[in-house]
Amino acid sequence: MFKFSERGANAYQSPIRKLVPFADAAKKKGTHVWHLNIGQPDLETPAIGMNAIRNMSQKIISYSPSKGIPSYIKKLTQFYNGFGYNLNEDDVFITTGASEGVIFALLSLADMGDEVIIPEPFYANYKGFAEMAGLVVKPVTARLEDNFSVKMEDFEACISDKTKVIFICNPANPTGKVYSKEELIILSNLCKKYNLFLVVDEVYRELCYSEEPFQSALMLEGMEDRVVIIDSISKRFSATGARIGSLVSRNAEFHNIVLKYAQLRLSSPTFGQVLAEALLDLDQSYFETVKEVYDKRRIHLVNRLQKIDGLTFSNPKGAFFMMIELPILDSDHFCQWLLEDFDYQGETVMLAPGSGFYINEEIGKTQVRVAYVLNEEQIEKAIDCLEIGLSTYKEKFPNLYKFENSVLS
Amino acid sequence: MFKFSERGANAYQSPIRKLVPFADAAKKKGTHVWHLNIGQPDLETPAIGMNAIRNMSQKIISYSPSKGIPSYIKKLTQFYNGFGYNLNEDDVFITTGASEGVIFALLSLADMGDEVIIPEPFYANYKGFAEMAGLVVKPVTARLEDNFSVKMEDFEACISDKTKVIFICNPANPTGKVYSKEELIILSNLCKKYNLFLVVDEVYRELCYSEEPFQSALMLEGMEDRVVIIDSISKRFSATGARIGSLVSRNAEFHNIVLKYAQLRLSSPTFGQVLAEALLDLDQSYFETVKEVYDKRRIHLVNRLQKIDGLTFSNPKGAFFMMIELPILDSDHFCQWLLEDFDYQGETVMLAPGSGFYINEEIGKTQVRVAYVLNEEQIEKAIDCLEIGLSTYKEKFPNLYKFENSVLS
Repeated sequence: MFKFSERGANAYQSPIRKLVPFADAAKKKGTHVWHLNIGQPDLETPAIGMNAIRNMSQKIISYSPSKGIPSYIKKLTQFYNGFGYNLNEDDVFITTGASEGVIFALLSLADMGDEVIIPEPFYANYKGFAEMAGLVVKPVTARLEDNFSVKMEDFEACISDKTKVIFICNPANPTGKVYSKEELIILSNLCKKYNLFLVVDEVYRELCYSEEPFQSALMLEGMEDRVVIIDSISKRFSATGARIGSLVSRNAEFHNIVLKYAQLRLSSPTFGQVLAEALLDLDQSYFETVKEVYDKRRIHLVNRLQKIDGLTFSNPKGAFFMMIELPILDSDHFCQWLLEDFDYQGETVMLAPGSGFYINEEIGKTQVRVAYVLNEEQIEKAIDCLEIGLSTYKEKFPNLYKFENSVLS
Repeated sequence: MFKFSERGANAYQSPIRKLVPFADAAKKKGTHVWHLNIGQPDLETPAIGMNAIRNMSQKIISYSPSKGIPSYIKKLTQFYNGFGYNLNEDDVFITTGASEGVIFALLSLADMGDEVIIPEPFYANYKGFAEMAGLVVKPVTARLEDNFSVKMEDFEACISDKTKVIFICNPANPTGKVYSKEELIILSNLCKKYNLFLVVDEVYRELCYSEEPFQSALMLEGMEDRVVIIDSISKRFSATGARIGSLVSRNAEFHNIVLKYAQLRLSSPTFGQVLAEALLDLDQSYFETVKEVYDKRRIHLVNRLQKIDGLTFSNPKGAFFMMIELPILDSDHFCQWLLEDFDYQGETVMLAPGSGFYINEEIGKTQVRVAYVLNEEQIEKAIDCLEIGLSTYKEKFPNLYKFENSVLS
């Protein structure tokens, strides 16, 4: 027998997608599955994008430049500069989704065995990419009971001489946390003090629901040479399948290294870049409408969840996710059971089990991540399934059920 | 100053793209650059593909399943089975270009520090991906003077207890070599004897110019569990910018591991998969026409090169590349000079310096890779530039010039 690689055997399994076979089986049985597990927006990709693709006149779908199609880079730079970033086109690098941006950034900034500090719960795939790059993730645990606030002293306690990067998501998937200016400045100061890079995934930048405006790390003073932004069109324009992201940094050496990795994979998809360039013609009202849609869902979801006994959660301030503490002992078991053995009027709900969003998996064992990417009516039905599911589960598995109830801010 | 990663600093620079800034500068000056450096086909992407994209009715460009869109997998499996492979749909995995297929295969098959045997000269990016995966490339050197034949005893001599994979390209980029059935059986026997995987990049499978039919590694007996095929639509359908490839293997454990890496990057581009699925409706005559076009160019190119003094080359039997030994001492210098300081009637030619196609870079120092992806008239002009370039270079840099002349088979 051939022995496959250890790293392959141990490779991180996405908690967002690992239950897909069970969902497929449920659908085969005729059960309708409400997908709250994955951040796949249900909003339409604006037609202006698809129209640009329909109007493409090029006869050869050829490689594009490894760093992206120049006209798209130009327009994207202007888009960013509309937020006051004052970037040059050289600062913007097109990637095949934010996913590729994450791996390129990690490979460029840190060597095998180096450490990256990531607040947990985190977007689960960060861990997978860090492991793929041979890095050690040092988690700073943000607690649901503290509204997922991150404590700056916890960051400093994690720094060792192996630390190269502080990596955050703002607004945060999966918690909905939005970092304040003060918090970002504290992280900046740590980066300067310990000679680290700050990598910020800002793909949800348009989705901040509180009054305080979004604070991009690109605006941090004295950090021009130490910041990388991960971005993507996936959520901004409901175009996850286009696979177009970007890396933004003012550090030229960073771009030189990234270019080498980018040349290896030749280029990002041409169609996606054409789509993305056209989507930048949308005006401000588009972003306002989208934000309003998600905000209404958020409010609806929170109100609906408050009616269920035994849940603990924090009202999300941004993005379109939230972590919920359920009155159960093993959310992997519960989420799989919802798909395998449960339905309510022919429907069930798919959630992402919480453990995969933590290095300290035990903390997540009682949590699930929910993405509010369905309309209010659908959310209602999906949460009906969750509520009925919980009470059915309580009867069936009393030893896997616990009793608590609190709603935070 | 922040210290970027060692691996980033040492990351492999693509010999195919590293001279791009010099080509861009030449174009800015108004010089026309003939691109023989890159395997970007000049043939049109068949319109049936673009039409399918224009007719897409989906309103949301959403993530596709991590292993590919089922209808495309189904059709691609049928396409492969037309060659007698007898595959199941589970054996076929869609990747974001062949590039991603290479890295997924290497990560799944071998651990950090393990060895992969690759005949050199090789498609340069294999080395980059192997390094990205922390692997050691053990080259089996194929000599121009031996028509790039690979000697089986050389393979066995390279095998150590760290060896996990033999990795070949068939038909081969950059040499045009096509492996015979006998050669493949010898490699199979080595894989069985030493418990290795055979990874074969077959993206040029349609382009074999000799009478002997192409031999896919998927037809090797007793190798069902040890073969991975890297494939792509890029060259087959002139659709490099779509970024769609595939991994084919009958080993279910291999697919389970690849799926984990694939879930990390979520999905391959939707548009490219729609294009690819439609392109499979082309009938056999399309492939015959394309092969005829490249074959004519190949013959034309070889005839034209034979008229130039001092070149050594082997007549390619497949794909659309060839390695040429030039009467110079440093092809990196020569290729850069062609772009920086030379033009012939306002034109110049871009070639890929040979050193990057070897682990033993010295062997490649006097060679260049040429892709015949231009029509005969353009090839004529490009090779005019090479010929005049060589004689100008000889005058300007006599100490970098050498004198020899032989044409092989």
